[in-house]
Amino acid sequence: MLLITMGTASEMENDSKLSVLYYGEKTKELGKAVVHFTAVEISLDVDADRDGQVERNNPNKGSWMWGPNGHGAILLVNCDSERVYGKKLDTLNLKDMSPMMLRTRGPPKLPQGYKLAIHISQGDAETVRVYKTSFVKDYPLVLGFKNLSKEVPYPGGNAEMKFYVEGLRFPDKDFEGLITISLSLLEPSSGDFPETPIFTDKVVFRVAPWIMTPNTLNPVEVFVCSTSDNYEFLKGMRKLVEKSGYKLKICYEYMNRQDRWMQDEIEFGYIDSPHQHFPVVLDSPRDGGLQDFPYEELLGPDFGYVTRTAYNEVVSSLDSFGNLEVSPPVTVNGRNYPLGRIIIGVAFPTATEGRNMTKVVQDFLWAQKVQRPIALFSDWLVVGHVDEFMTFVPAPDKKGFRLLLASPDAAYKLFRGLQKDGHGQAKMFDGLGPGQEITVDEILSDEKLLAENNYVQSCIDWNRDVLKRELGLDDDDIIDLPILFHVIEDNRAVAYYPDMVNMIVLGKNLGIPKPFGPKVDGRCVLETEMTNLMKGLGVRCTYIDDFASYHKNLGEVHCGSNVRREPFSFKWWNLEM
Amino acid sequence: MLLITMGTASEMENDSKLSVLYYGEKTKELGKAVVHFTAVEISLDVDADRDGQVERNNPNKGSWMWGPNGHGAILLVNCDSERVYGKKLDTLNLKDMSPMMLRTRGPPKLPQGYKLAIHISQGDAETVRVYKTSFVKDYPLVLGFKNLSKEVPYPGGNAEMKFYVEGLRFPDKDFEGLITISLSLLEPSSGDFPETPIFTDKVVFRVAPWIMTPNTLNPVEVFVCSTSDNYEFLKGMRKLVEKSGYKLKICYEYMNRQDRWMQDEIEFGYIDSPHQHFPVVLDSPRDGGLQDFPYEELLGPDFGYVTRTAYNEVVSSLDSFGNLEVSPPVTVNGRNYPLGRIIIGVAFPTATEGRNMTKVVQDFLWAQKVQRPIALFSDWLVVGHVDEFMTFVPAPDKKGFRLLLASPDAAYKLFRGLQKDGHGQAKMFDGLGPGQEITVDEILSDEKLLAENNYVQSCIDWNRDVLKRELGLDDDDIIDLPILFHVIEDNRAVAYYPDMVNMIVLGKNLGIPKPFGPKVDGRCVLETEMTNLMKGLGVRCTYIDDFASYHKNLGEVHCGSNVRREPFSFKWWNLEM
Repeated sequence: MLLITMGTASEMENDSKLSVLYYGEKTKELGKAVVHFTAVEISLDVDADRDGQVERNNPNKGSWMWGPNGHGAILLVNCDSERVYGKKLDTLNLKDMSPMMLRTRGPPKLPQGYKLAIHISQGDAETVRVYKTSFVKDYPLVLGFKNLSKEVPYPGGNAEMKFYVEGLRFPDKDFEGLITISLSLLEPSSGDFPETPIFTDKVVFRVAPWIMTPNTLNPVEVFVCSTSDNYEFLKGMRKLVEKSGYKLKICYEYMNRQDRWMQDEIEFGYIDSPHQHFPVVLDSPRDGGLQDFPYEELLGPDFGYVTRTAYNEVVSSLDSFGNLEVSPPVTVNGRNYPLGRIIIGVAFPTATEGRNMTKVVQDFLWAQKVQRPIALFSDWLVVGHVDEFMTFVPAPDKKGFRLLLASPDAAYKLFRGLQKDGHGQAKMFDGLGPGQEITVDEILSDEKLLAENNYVQSCIDWNRDVLKRELGLDDDDIIDLPILFHVIEDNRAVAYYPDMVNMIVLGKNLGIPKPFGPKVDGRCVLETEMTNLMKGLGVRCTYIDDFASYHKNLGEVHCGSNVRREPFSFKWWNLEM
Repeated sequence: MLLITMGTASEMENDSKLSVLYYGEKTKELGKAVVHFTAVEISLDVDADRDGQVERNNPNKGSWMWGPNGHGAILLVNCDSERVYGKKLDTLNLKDMSPMMLRTRGPPKLPQGYKLAIHISQGDAETVRVYKTSFVKDYPLVLGFKNLSKEVPYPGGNAEMKFYVEGLRFPDKDFEGLITISLSLLEPSSGDFPETPIFTDKVVFRVAPWIMTPNTLNPVEVFVCSTSDNYEFLKGMRKLVEKSGYKLKICYEYMNRQDRWMQDEIEFGYIDSPHQHFPVVLDSPRDGGLQDFPYEELLGPDFGYVTRTAYNEVVSSLDSFGNLEVSPPVTVNGRNYPLGRIIIGVAFPTATEGRNMTKVVQDFLWAQKVQRPIALFSDWLVVGHVDEFMTFVPAPDKKGFRLLLASPDAAYKLFRGLQKDGHGQAKMFDGLGPGQEITVDEILSDEKLLAENNYVQSCIDWNRDVLKRELGLDDDDIIDLPILFHVIEDNRAVAYYPDMVNMIVLGKNLGIPKPFGPKVDGRCVLETEMTNLMKGLGVRCTYIDDFASYHKNLGEVHCGSNVRREPFSFKWWNLEM
């Protein structure tokens, strides 16, 4: 048996040969056989080392591994729109796609009858499309839903052919995110037999996950709605945003249809690859008046769009994205989450009936993998959003942030102190109109309110335990803000006065709902306390009057705004899973 | 602020107290506060260290990790039937379920109004059931599809309560296999408020995967069908099986309805946990005459059953389980597969139309994870099963096995040698009846047959490359068996003479289709060559006449039999993923 290998590619067909001489026992030559060889080097290449360049024949290109020492190419879901009018999720921008090269070395032509074919499996048919550069037509489709396999021309000699690969689906419950593309050299068969593959090369891509951005990342744009009744709020927001040096974007009535809850219809995130990154808005199945805003106004060139539709599920208030937040980077029992962890609110599972976030959205969030979600208990609230009792603010020390939690206990402590110091007659809601005002003494003597707040505190305490455990926090990573709740329907609660934890975080500037607390020496005690609690964090507190236009409608500053932020400098593919 | 912890559980309610004395500036006592405490220790416990015992409060019980240093409890799908008549997939055998303990230390009763509740999430509702021991009724259902949450009694004092957890679903495309069960201590609220959780403990199970058994594992039982025309075959099989020391089980006509393909309707596997393991038969969507056999005859006490139904897909010959095999343990580029890798046959993806294994079965196989599948190209065969061109036999050296491949090249080499040595007139199919016989010279002069076999060889060669790469094999791990094919329809091939690679492997005994090759000195040249090729492996070759009853029907010994084997001694949870 002879095993023959060739070290270099042929320049011409059959340009190498092997002669075999057969000898008898006494060196008499019995015969001679000559075999001609054509060596062709074929490689399907991708950016498997994630440096933005398509290297030649990376030995790891056929598999995918997480981590700084990992490997495997990356694919973006081409979910932006190159057109501003007549939008569609289109395919015109090559930068949104991953380059892939067919590289060959060998004779100018393949031997008679040999062919190259590029192919994907049926399972990947709805997840990927492959385009090719062409002199005749711009980027003809090579592979897609209807073409799982296609012959591609042999580029000839020492040449290469460029392809562009486009992701079509984000990872989800039924799609891990990995896609394989193969290239085969097919040998002609005699007679009517089909060609048979004699060599197959393959490359593996992972579709980039959708990534959320926590409050500790720098803002880029701030979004609010203009409605017929929120002039004061807009004024306050404009001042804050301009002072902070960011852009304020206003969504007007024709588009928001009096839906003021900019936080709830959308969540800003981004997708990232070594060759391209852009923001992607996740559109909630909530579909309020703002329903058309993300598709019509946000989607555009280098601004992607993704949504999940709840076909067989009830959509509840818990599907609003005030109920979808993300923590800053954390380390928990030695496990790093350099992109933080997603936080959602659900019904507590011992409840006999409760509202929940729809399964389609939860499945999507879990499938992104890189910001493993934490489910909190938020169904105890009328509106039911996690942003009603928690937020994160940047800090110069410890873990780089503090978790702020609403705390009825802290509020009662503050109010009892006021009473003890002789300020029991100080009034809340001063100047907000007749019948609104209430004294500290009156609040403290309301037994029903106390019972309600004890209940609320126990709900928040359970969440506090979960957050400590799941984010690896100590007690001194948490600041309790003095906030009272009251129960208004179905034993569910809402903030009693503007809910200071429901703030907007713009770098070092906090836009906090103006609480209209009792005044001592002409200064709001709640504002003073809040500002004191933020001392040492290097942040500035601005109190924004959202009382009439938001608080009375059961939301606050955070519910009424949204912030697009810069992406993480940390690359998701460097995560160790 | 005072942070108070208690080191031991209370024996009585309020049996610990803390007195706080308040002093003025000059040590004058201003007042005294006394707080009473009741400490209760609550733990939901499982066998998270996988030693068969439910240890107390394992710190890792709330997560799941693969590997010898891993952790996390294991759950079996309770897919056997304790009844033999009136079968159903039932729940009577506690050994099939995973024990789970609620352990408490504390006073005999919880303080007034406190409750314990055990709960699962909506997503796990169809994957798990939880039962409890009871004095009143045997094992009442605690959690299941209709009860996601249930109050459980506080066992009182230093006590424990035992639960049994039952898996309902194997891992699949939409179910990773992980299940969380939580236990919460609920605090009463004043008024009408719902109780709130003040402590939640959780445990995580992984559902045991279905595991296939390669030829290198010891047999337990051998199954064949009895049909009106297979007496000779049965006689040969009985002799082989009895000589090998195993049990032969015959499926009779009333049950097999003349379906002789015992390999194709079922695949034997098993499930394993630290507390229990049993065989599980995977029933193919093929559903031939043997359709009822696995459920009616195999399912029983400690013998499980699982199937996948192809609702929206065409079921083809590639769904028969002669097209589903598994390799012995291998190591590939440093990655260990101590349970081997599953091997299936599919259409080559460059084919414009081809038969495939149904997606439901492929999804199931991939989701088991522990024997990562390899897809070969088998659609070039009329029947289309991987067992028509490959098998594995045990070996005392190298990797512990050899891959045997059908090889037309090896057959032509052998036949040409015969011709050269003057045996061109030796006859194949001698004695099989008039018109059957054909000489070596005639075979070698058939240009059409040569072209067909060149095509077949190229198909097998492509599979050989894939197997070498995906199983980490060298050329000397592979033995080429002299087998010819011919093309009979749609350019698809079938073995020309009994396909020796389609053998049954029973420990060191191989039951090989008797090839009826040309005879030299009265001995079949193909048998001699086959026996020679197996030399050094320590196996014994027995040739079984399957010509009329199987070969003529396009199958052989392997297609007509099935072997249930002992499970691996390697535990799947020790895999490093």
